[in-house]
Parts: sequence; C-alpha cells; structure tokens
Amino acid sequence: MNGAQALIRTLVDAGIDVCFANPGTSEMHFVAALDDVPEMRGILGLFEGAVTGAADGYARMAGRPAATLLHLGSGLGNGLANLHNARRAATPVVNVVGDHATYHKQYDAPLDSDIESIAKGVSSWIRTPQQPDEVAADGAAAVAAAYGPPGQVATLILPADVSWGETSTGPAPAPDRQRGASVEPAAVEEVATVLRSGEPTALLVGGRVVADDSHLNAVAQVAAACGVKLLCETFPARLRRGAGRPAVERLGYLAEFAQAQLDGLAHLVVVDTKSPVSFFAYPDKASDLVPDGCAVHVLAGPNDDVGGAVAALVEAVGAGSEPLPTQGASDTPAPSGELNVETLGTALAATLPEGAIVADEGNTSGLFVAGATAGCAPHDWLCLTGGAIGIGVPLATGAAVACPDRQVLCLESDGSTMYTMQALWTQAREGLDVTTVVCNNRSYAVLNMELARVGATAGGPAARSMLDLAEPPLDFVALAQGMGVPATRATTADELVAQLRAAFAEDGPHLIEAMVPSIM
Amino acid sequence: MNGAQALIRTLVDAGIDVCFANPGTSEMHFVAALDDVPEMRGILGLFEGAVTGAADGYARMAGRPAATLLHLGSGLGNGLANLHNARRAATPVVNVVGDHATYHKQYDAPLDSDIESIAKGVSSWIRTPQQPDEVAADGAAAVAAAYGPPGQVATLILPADVSWGETSTGPAPAPDRQRGASVEPAAVEEVATVLRSGEPTALLVGGRVVADDSHLNAVAQVAAACGVKLLCETFPARLRRGAGRPAVERLGYLAEFAQAQLDGLAHLVVVDTKSPVSFFAYPDKASDLVPDGCAVHVLAGPNDDVGGAVAALVEAVGAGSEPLPTQGASDTPAPSGELNVETLGTALAATLPEGAIVADEGNTSGLFVAGATAGCAPHDWLCLTGGAIGIGVPLATGAAVACPDRQVLCLESDGSTMYTMQALWTQAREGLDVTTVVCNNRSYAVLNMELARVGATAGGPAARSMLDLAEPPLDFVALAQGMGVPATRATTADELVAQLRAAFAEDGPHLIEAMVPSIM
Repeated sequence: MNGAQALIRTLVDAGIDVCFANPGTSEMHFVAALDDVPEMRGILGLFEGAVTGAADGYARMAGRPAATLLHLGSGLGNGLANLHNARRAATPVVNVVGDHATYHKQYDAPLDSDIESIAKGVSSWIRTPQQPDEVAADGAAAVAAAYGPPGQVATLILPADVSWGETSTGPAPAPDRQRGASVEPAAVEEVATVLRSGEPTALLVGGRVVADDSHLNAVAQVAAACGVKLLCETFPARLRRGAGRPAVERLGYLAEFAQAQLDGLAHLVVVDTKSPVSFFAYPDKASDLVPDGCAVHVLAGPNDDVGGAVAALVEAVGAGSEPLPTQGASDTPAPSGELNVETLGTALAATLPEGAIVADEGNTSGLFVAGATAGCAPHDWLCLTGGAIGIGVPLATGAAVACPDRQVLCLESDGSTMYTMQALWTQAREGLDVTTVVCNNRSYAVLNMELARVGATAGGPAARSMLDLAEPPLDFVALAQGMGVPATRATTADELVAQLRAAFAEDGPHLIEAMVPSIM
Repeated sequence: MNGAQALIRTLVDAGIDVCFANPGTSEMHFVAALDDVPEMRGILGLFEGAVTGAADGYARMAGRPAATLLHLGSGLGNGLANLHNARRAATPVVNVVGDHATYHKQYDAPLDSDIESIAKGVSSWIRTPQQPDEVAADGAAAVAAAYGPPGQVATLILPADVSWGETSTGPAPAPDRQRGASVEPAAVEEVATVLRSGEPTALLVGGRVVADDSHLNAVAQVAAACGVKLLCETFPARLRRGAGRPAVERLGYLAEFAQAQLDGLAHLVVVDTKSPVSFFAYPDKASDLVPDGCAVHVLAGPNDDVGGAVAALVEAVGAGSEPLPTQGASDTPAPSGELNVETLGTALAATLPEGAIVADEGNTSGLFVAGATAGCAPHDWLCLTGGAIGIGVPLATGAAVACPDRQVLCLESDGSTMYTMQALWTQAREGLDVTTVVCNNRSYAVLNMELARVGATAGGPAARSMLDLAEPPLDFVALAQGMGVPATRATTADELVAQLRAAFAEDGPHLIEAMVPSIM
C-alpha cells in the first residue's frame, strides 16, 4: 500500500468519500489510487475555484467534509477565493495539495512555490508529511482539524514521493468528532438574566444555530418567551427557512440598514456569530455597528458546543412549553409582464420546489428574493459568507452532490458567474439537478452603488467603464451550452416562470439567463 | 490630491500607463482616480487570472510593467497562478491590491484575510503604506522593485483610507532603472577559457538573452566562434526567432530528451537561466539533468547586467567578425486533409504573419508547431514559464495591448483554456488582434502521459475519468461567442488553414476550435 492509497483509505474510513479534484502530474498517484479505494468518488472540476467552492457547498449540506485535490501552489491559489469563503462559513474542508517530491524541492523547479505561505491565508491547519508512513496519521489529523469546532479548512501538502512511496503502517483510524467546549452554567445564567431583564435586547444568531432545526427552534422559543428580537447574521452559511420554521430577520448588508435594525438596543446576545461590523469601511461611517451603550454578551462562540449552550438557555429562561412562533405559508401567484428585481422574486417564490437548496449569489438582483420566498415550502439558503465572489455555481454543484434527491436553485449575477462558471461542466458531467438563474444586468451593479457610497466622485467615463459589462454583451445561454448545460433566456416574467417550471421538472442541470435590469 | 490620484500619477510618471483591473469596493477611489489621470488606461478583466496573465504578456512585449488592480486577498488569490508564471518569467509587474481601511482591519470583516501571506508565494517585494503621504513613494519603490533586475512581481497593498485620504506630498519622482551588477572581467575570462578549451561544451541561454536581438546575436556568434552548442532554456519568457535570426535549440520538457541533448558535455555555460532540472520528479529518474562530470559555469545570473556580460564575452573570445549563423527561411505549403498534430504545425507555419507574437500553451498538441515554424518570418514566442496552466489567453491579451500593430497567435489546449478564458471578453472589448487556436483533444492529454511516467498503475476507470474531458464535450465556439469573440471550428487541415487566413486578415479577436486528436 502506497501513501496515496493509505491516505484515501483513511479519509474514507473517516467518512470522507467525495473528492473534488483538479489534478496535475504530482497528484497522479493519488488519482491512480482512486481505483484501489472505490468508495472514494472523484469528481472532476475544470478549475480549482470550482473544486473548492463545491467542497464548501457539499459540506454545508452533507454535514461532513469533502476532500479536494489541488495541484501545487498555483492550483491552491486558483482555489483560494472559495476557500476563503469556506473559512468564513466555518465549513470543514480537507485540502490535499500535491507538491514536488521531497528531494526535488531543492532544485526550485518551475512549478515550485511556497505552498504553506499561500495556504496560511485560508487555513490554520497545515501539515506536510515527509515520509509515506506519516501520511495516514496526518490525513486523520486533517479530518479532525477540519471538523473543529470551528469547522475549518485543513490543508495537507502531499509530496509526490510521500504519495508514491510504500507505507508500513497502512491507514489510520478515524478520529473522534469533537462537540466543542461546554459553556459554563454561569455564562448561560448571565445571558438568561439579560434576556429576562425587560431592557431592549436582541438575540443575534448564526453559524450552526441557523443550520439546524432544533437549535433554530430553541432560539426562537427563547426569543418569544423573553420578548426579544431574533436576528440572524447577514450571510449565514446555511439557513433553515420557509413555512413552518421560525422566521429570523437577517441583518442588512448595508451598514445603515443594519444600524437601523440594531438601533435602541441595550443588549445584544450573540450566539455562534460575530458582533456586527460593516462589510467595508466608508469615509465618515462607523465600522462597528453596535449602538453606543449597547452591551454585547457572547453565549457561545466558534469553539463552543453551541447545541448544548442553546439547550441550556432554553431551560434557564424557562422557554420551550409555549407554541413555536413560525413563518406562515405563502402561496405566491406567478407574476406576469415585465421582468425586474421584484418579479424575479415572485417568479422564484411561485416555483421554488419543496426542499430546495438555494445557493445565493444574486447580489443586487436578488434584493427581493429572500423576502418573496420567506413563506415558501421549507428549504435551505446558502450565502456568500466571505464576500469573495464566484461562489454560487460551485456551491450549488457541491450541494447537489450532497443531496441528490433535492432540487438546487443557484441564484447568480452576471459579474460573479464569470469567475467560476467552469462548475457548470461538472454539473452536466455528473447529471446534477441544479437550476442556475443568472441575472444579467450587464454591469457590476453593486460597484456602481459602492462607487457612490465610498464617497468617490460620481465617476467619470473611465471609472464607469470599469463597472460596465455591456460591451460586448455576455451571452450566458451560449456559455452554458458550451459546457453542456441546456440553457434558455427569459426576457419577461412569464418566460422566467415557464422556464423555471420546465427546469425544475426535468432532471439534470439547466441555466436560465434572466434579463433583469439593474436597480443601481 | 488623494492617495489614489498620487499613486496613479506616480505610476504614469514612471512609464506605467496600463492597468489591468478587476476592482471591488475597496478599490473604488483608485477607479474614480482613473478619470483624474487620463494617461492611465484601465483595462477590465472579468477574472483576476485574466488580469495578471495579461500584465505578464504586456510586460514581456512592452519591456515595461503594467499595473494590476486586485480586490483584497481573494482577488490576489485568483490572480496568483499567473503571477507565479510571471515570477518565473522574471516579468516586472506592479500589483495594487486593495485592502480594508487601516482602522477597519481590527474588526476582521468577512473579506479580511492575510494578504501579505498570500502575496509572499509570488512576490518578494510587498509593502503596505499606512498613510496617504506614504503611497506615492511606495508606488515608486514598487516600480523600482518590479524592474529589478531580476524583474519581479512587486505588490503594493493599498488600504482604502490610504487611497481616499488627502496627501500633502503629491506624486513621487520616477525611479532610476537599474542595469544589474557588472560581471567581473575575471569571470568572463574564465568562461571564455572554457568555451575555447575544445572540450565538449554548450552555452545554455535564457531570460533576457533570448528576448533581445543583439544579445541573441552575440551568443550565437560566440557559439559559432568557439564551436560549441547553443541551447536555450525549455520555456523562455520571450524568444526572438524565425528566418534571419540565430536558431537556438530549446531543451526538451521531458527529462530524458533534455538529458540526450546534454549527454557527453564536459562544460555547461549558463547565461540568465538556471542549471537544468527536471520539471517534475519521477520515481527512479534524476532531478538534476546535468550529466555526471559536467562542470557548470555561470556567466551571468538574474541580478547581473546580462547585456554587458554577453558583450564582454564576445570580445573575450574574439567573436563578432564572422558572419552570423542564422535560421534559413522556409516556405511551408499549406497542408490538406486530416487535421492532426503535424498538420496543425504546418498549417500554422503556412499562415503565421510576419512579426507575429505566439503565446504558446499548446501543450501536447503543440509538439510539432515550434519545429514547423522555425523558418517563418521573424516572430516572438512566449512560453508558459512557471507550469501553472491557464496562461495562454491572458498572455496573448496583454501582448496584443502592448503591440497593437502586430498579430498575436494564441496556441491553446482545451484543458488549459478552461482556466482563464474570461480574457476572451477583454479581447473583444478592446478589439485586440488575437487569433486563438484551441486544440481540442477532449482530454488532459499530458496527464495521460504523466500518469504512466510517474510509474502509477496503468490507470483504472476512476483514474482515467479524472483526465477525460469528453463528456460532455466542450464547445469552444459557443464559449467564445458567449464572450463576444467570433469563432469557427476546424475539423480538417484545409478548414484550419482557411480559418487562420480569414482570422489574420480581419481586425479584432477570433477563435478557432481545432479538432486535433490526442497523441497520447
């Protein structure tokens, strides 16, 4: 058994049986070993950003990591933006990054680079086994590190000779999965006291809380019992929502919206998210969005046992007996006529299948979608957690691999689709049930807004041309078809509704280019 | 004058008047300032790998750096692979990477990451001004660092408040450009003695030597006068070649080919390149390709004044008076019939315009192209220097910006085109004269070879499927048209010749999908 075989067997024994891959020469033994450990499913991506974003989407839905297979520092670099998003989502990912043979490093061959330095930006766990006998144990340690908590990107750098060399150890045993640190009863009691104080208070939740029905129900019961506002972080990794589930109000992306939501609070209780800050800094605007005089209380953070903390809080405030406040069902009629950001929202609300998974990178075009779909049948919502655009198509791809029995809606923008659309090919190749809606407004619309917001001058022609995607127009129907994904274009709300229904009804991936004018 | 304005003015004054850009919110003041310094031409790319590869191609042809504009660590990450290639090409590049405002960093907002750590993998010069008054001087220092020698990727991290804050200094003066360290006469004399020794000797040149007619002529005269072999590094950044220029034999990519070329040498004299090593390590094969007993002598390295060293060597060996040995002109007839790797080569040889610039990422399909075109009218050849695939389309884009009066041929493979094809859109937008030939063999053909070469098992179905791009087939005609580039498909040699002639005759970009069967 060589190092690659021992590593893959270790991963499979630890429950990791999907590997999103874009390999090169230094990974050929790993690739060859896929036939020796057939439980590992290799899924090819034609660009590393597609690979890493898929690993993120997979783990958010499967609840366990996928592996990635990347080619040296440049392959890792290509995957870095979506690993950044995975890091911000606290998604467990096990990167396997091939490297030159240990003895070859001294020659500084053309593809050689400082992989550890590149990895550091997204990965706090990095290890490079130097001997075949180390690789299985390091692989198991990578899985343990990936699970956390917090979930993280663990990067195992795999020198070619460690991969091809014979091991004497064989695979390593699966690591135990940690629940995180228990929150002290005194800390729970302190938060309970705040919640029952009668002062203006909000409960701000995120991370694992909103990804799990029982945790979400628990915090909703606490909020109802104590009469406090329930808020959700702006961009949760996975939000359980829809009719019959507790409705949580997401904090706005724009600082002034978030400040309005937080205005007047005396206490903010934070569970598995961060105290709110502005996404970007703007001249003469606040970075810290917590109102003056508002005290922030952290019930549980990323390293903690969030489920245990939430359950303890239910008990401490005496909640749990009253009926759960839930979102009512809506029955949105299909819109007709003009296609715009509002009818985009109602068209999606009218057609969204029960159990859908929404990978949301709609940006400015998606403004009304979340509101319109709040009362749809239960579904999951996956957000752009780290702000690095180019997540949507890969994220949807990975989610579809994790949940083959569910429909995935990928809500995309023209600008962001162009970063990692190679994942469409993987969708076609794997026959994944993903419906991608690309809202094409022929601009980096959000930047038109940001150009004004940062206080830059109104923007001369040179500046405006940097935000303009109109010339030549991008044809997403042609682009999708070029990668084997059937595609149509919708220019009215009626067309969009009809095309959505057709796409959801038919197996395999589809893309709809929705000509939605910019609101900016 | 704010920091962004002072920086752009400094860059322009230092001769940098092209900025390939993919901006985000934190770069909006830089974007706004493009209207204040109209000499700076902003060129939008829809993905950062397109931006950085274009900066590489531009500088290789223009002889001076372009700037890039990238969005925080994730934007830099997306551009990292082609910055790696630029680093290996010793190409001067000035990266401007936007970051959060200095006072906003403490909040660890979603897009925050360790930009310096990510940059370190490709950039040995990194600086982050903390005050608007520092940015102009730091910009000038970045230009100086980029020029070298050796040329390098200089990365200026630009916090948003440093960009938008008022400066009291204004722009900084342009830095002097350094020639590099003079090579000692004794070192020249030592090399001259070796070259005249009569022992089996080769002169291995690269870098600046083969990018400059006078340097190339000089080393060819030296080789002829001393009766030694003249070799060129495997992947030069820019090689002057064609009829009437000295012909230099490039070292083979495969170690066994290079070893055959070096076999029997007693001396290897190296000028502005590295002593040859295998691209990858393979079980039981050598990494260092210099034959046993062969002495390596370095005339001039990356930090040195290569032109001065070469001129001194001409004098030291008494060369320069005899006629220059040059490549004869060939008049290749246009091929007919089957399209394969051989007729691909002759079709290109029959149609290559005088003064063409070839951006070569043909990989296995390009096997016969270099040989077939050796006697074409003078042209430049740009190689994949760092092995990070996805360079060709961006490199061609940048070269076309640098040389608007020349035709650019981009020789591509299906697998590598898929990494950074977004640059096609920039070609269409800027009306660049680039003809891209995508050799579509529907596989990662080079990896089929490498799978066998690394000694991995022949490859079971799982392994082979990781190298197979056949299902679904990629349609590069549709992909190009989706980005506004006119495209055709050639399935015979006759069609390829006709389509090449039409593409070269018409202004603006074109793409030809050449259905060339794999040789692997």
